[in-house]
Amino acid sequence: MVVETRLELPAVLPVDDRLAPELRARIDGKAKPLGALGRLEDLALRLGLIQGSLAPRLDRATLLLFAGDHGLVAEGVAAYPASVTAEMVKTMLRGRATANAFAATVGAELVVIDAGVAADLGAHPKLVAEKIRSGTANAARFPALGPEDTRRALSAGARLARNAVAKGADAVLLGDMGIGNTSSAALVTHRLAPAALDLCIGPGAGHDAAGLARKREAIERAAARTPASDPFAVLCEFGGCEIAMMAGAVIGAASARRPVLVDGFITAAAALAAIRLVPEALPYCVFGHRSPEPGHRVILDALGAEPLLDLGLRLGEGTGALLALPLLRAASRIFTDVDDLAEVLARAG
Amino acid sequence: MVVETRLELPAVLPVDDRLAPELRARIDGKAKPLGALGRLEDLALRLGLIQGSLAPRLDRATLLLFAGDHGLVAEGVAAYPASVTAEMVKTMLRGRATANAFAATVGAELVVIDAGVAADLGAHPKLVAEKIRSGTANAARFPALGPEDTRRALSAGARLARNAVAKGADAVLLGDMGIGNTSSAALVTHRLAPAALDLCIGPGAGHDAAGLARKREAIERAAARTPASDPFAVLCEFGGCEIAMMAGAVIGAASARRPVLVDGFITAAAALAAIRLVPEALPYCVFGHRSPEPGHRVILDALGAEPLLDLGLRLGEGTGALLALPLLRAASRIFTDVDDLAEVLARAG
Repeated sequence: MVVETRLELPAVLPVDDRLAPELRARIDGKAKPLGALGRLEDLALRLGLIQGSLAPRLDRATLLLFAGDHGLVAEGVAAYPASVTAEMVKTMLRGRATANAFAATVGAELVVIDAGVAADLGAHPKLVAEKIRSGTANAARFPALGPEDTRRALSAGARLARNAVAKGADAVLLGDMGIGNTSSAALVTHRLAPAALDLCIGPGAGHDAAGLARKREAIERAAARTPASDPFAVLCEFGGCEIAMMAGAVIGAASARRPVLVDGFITAAAALAAIRLVPEALPYCVFGHRSPEPGHRVILDALGAEPLLDLGLRLGEGTGALLALPLLRAASRIFTDVDDLAEVLARAG
Repeated sequence: MVVETRLELPAVLPVDDRLAPELRARIDGKAKPLGALGRLEDLALRLGLIQGSLAPRLDRATLLLFAGDHGLVAEGVAAYPASVTAEMVKTMLRGRATANAFAATVGAELVVIDAGVAADLGAHPKLVAEKIRSGTANAARFPALGPEDTRRALSAGARLARNAVAKGADAVLLGDMGIGNTSSAALVTHRLAPAALDLCIGPGAGHDAAGLARKREAIERAAARTPASDPFAVLCEFGGCEIAMMAGAVIGAASARRPVLVDGFITAAAALAAIRLVPEALPYCVFGHRSPEPGHRVILDALGAEPLLDLGLRLGEGTGALLALPLLRAASRIFTDVDDLAEVLARAG
């Protein structure tokens, strides 16, 4: 654990529960029946705790979408060729992926980051170049990332999230793109939830029975290669440049006292790694949706998290986080934009 | 049923299923794994069928928020005094109710309609004056509405929805405000789902055990007064100026081939009445959320509807419809704003 002690990550303060009674009283005092906004009231309270404010603000939001490739794809774990990662990134840069469409409709900024795509994407004004390496090593045979790779990925993620906040983001959304990354996420989940490997493996972007068997076998070989269970070591062994960088982004956003809106399985695996590294980060994470990918449920259960949406989404790209964003915005407005019930009742006589 | 034959409601065309294969093919062809957008894909398909378009548009949306009072409140069915209805309408006109806050965050126009508030609200530039009567009669003792009241309410609702569409609304959202209206909705649900009365009664805006017993007893007396089961007669007997007008709005929006985004229990009871009057209206209704009010589940089950959100909301005011609106918008953009997978794969080589 010499490596981990050299990790330079920003400090995350525990959320300040002392504000909770006053926040709850303000929510309860609004012009509505007690508790009538259900889970939105809990969300409003949490936003207040996260931002340390009786009037938490949630106007501007930035989706950080991290892309990376996975050496494990050589084992046939994915239904699409690895080259699709780069092409989807280009599609995002052209503004024509689902993430772009949804970001535009909910009014979020989209930032695409090359965390480790196995192709030269060239310079593009909309692409943030943070390539750790050109795809991970094949985790069935080698550690996916070296310790220095992982350290740099975590550090870059934290820096990007803090920069987004410095530029005005009231919330940071996480999104992923990476052919093969459900395999990486399955391994991270298995070790860090922890949970039986079998519970963490699912069809990902789509597999027939033979494809799923191939995926399962490759993941099992990767797991058998090492008993790593420390969060930093698990990120090294099973990687995902984008997963490690997203874990850093969780810590960065939490250190800046901003909510992190987590998307589906891959981003949740990154959040899990972040929380295992820095447990104080947990209450900063808002889980946007529940994916049908089985490993996602494992993570949510391990963290005691209940996502906001349950719509059968399993695309990634931050789409589930984007769709949940309007709920956070609405929750924040309860404090500032709604009259108190006492005023209304007084007028009603 | 002489009365009902005089109902002049706009014709609702069945949605045109012939577009379904082409819509499905377009969704399936987008740059994402097959089915990866889950229920949003079904929603996208439905929007295409409703609007009869391969590129359904869902930019502008109008929340029609109908307010009315209930004579049944004299029996002690409500936790708040009836005067709160008028004061909440004034709060909405001042822009300080939850509906205003949420409408602003999701970018919907809010139109407040006096369908039958038991107070003179005066003229206000933002209030649509369509008062059928100054509150309904006490349904425990009399029919809540006369046939002419109900006819006018349905007609006004249809006209208002069609006007909203004529002014550019791509979707019509329904919202309600009316102290006592869960009692009216319980009776409508009981007769039109149909379902045992007991299953349709819940705490509404909040009741202690004594309050709930009082509410239950008054509702039972109203039900015992008449065996009405025809949808028009049920609206007359158990009323709700706002419920009848919302039923008209469902039919009006459907006749204009626009989706109707239904909110919680009260609006769902109105949609149920509309669908029992005009069964073709069903596929135009999108159910925004699931409320914990037990009668809401009865309606959803009776209609085979699965709401988009499940957040424990029980406020009304269209809040659940507003929170679901971004999902409809996002679904519509799948057709127009996302590249085809074939293009991406061809570029990936």
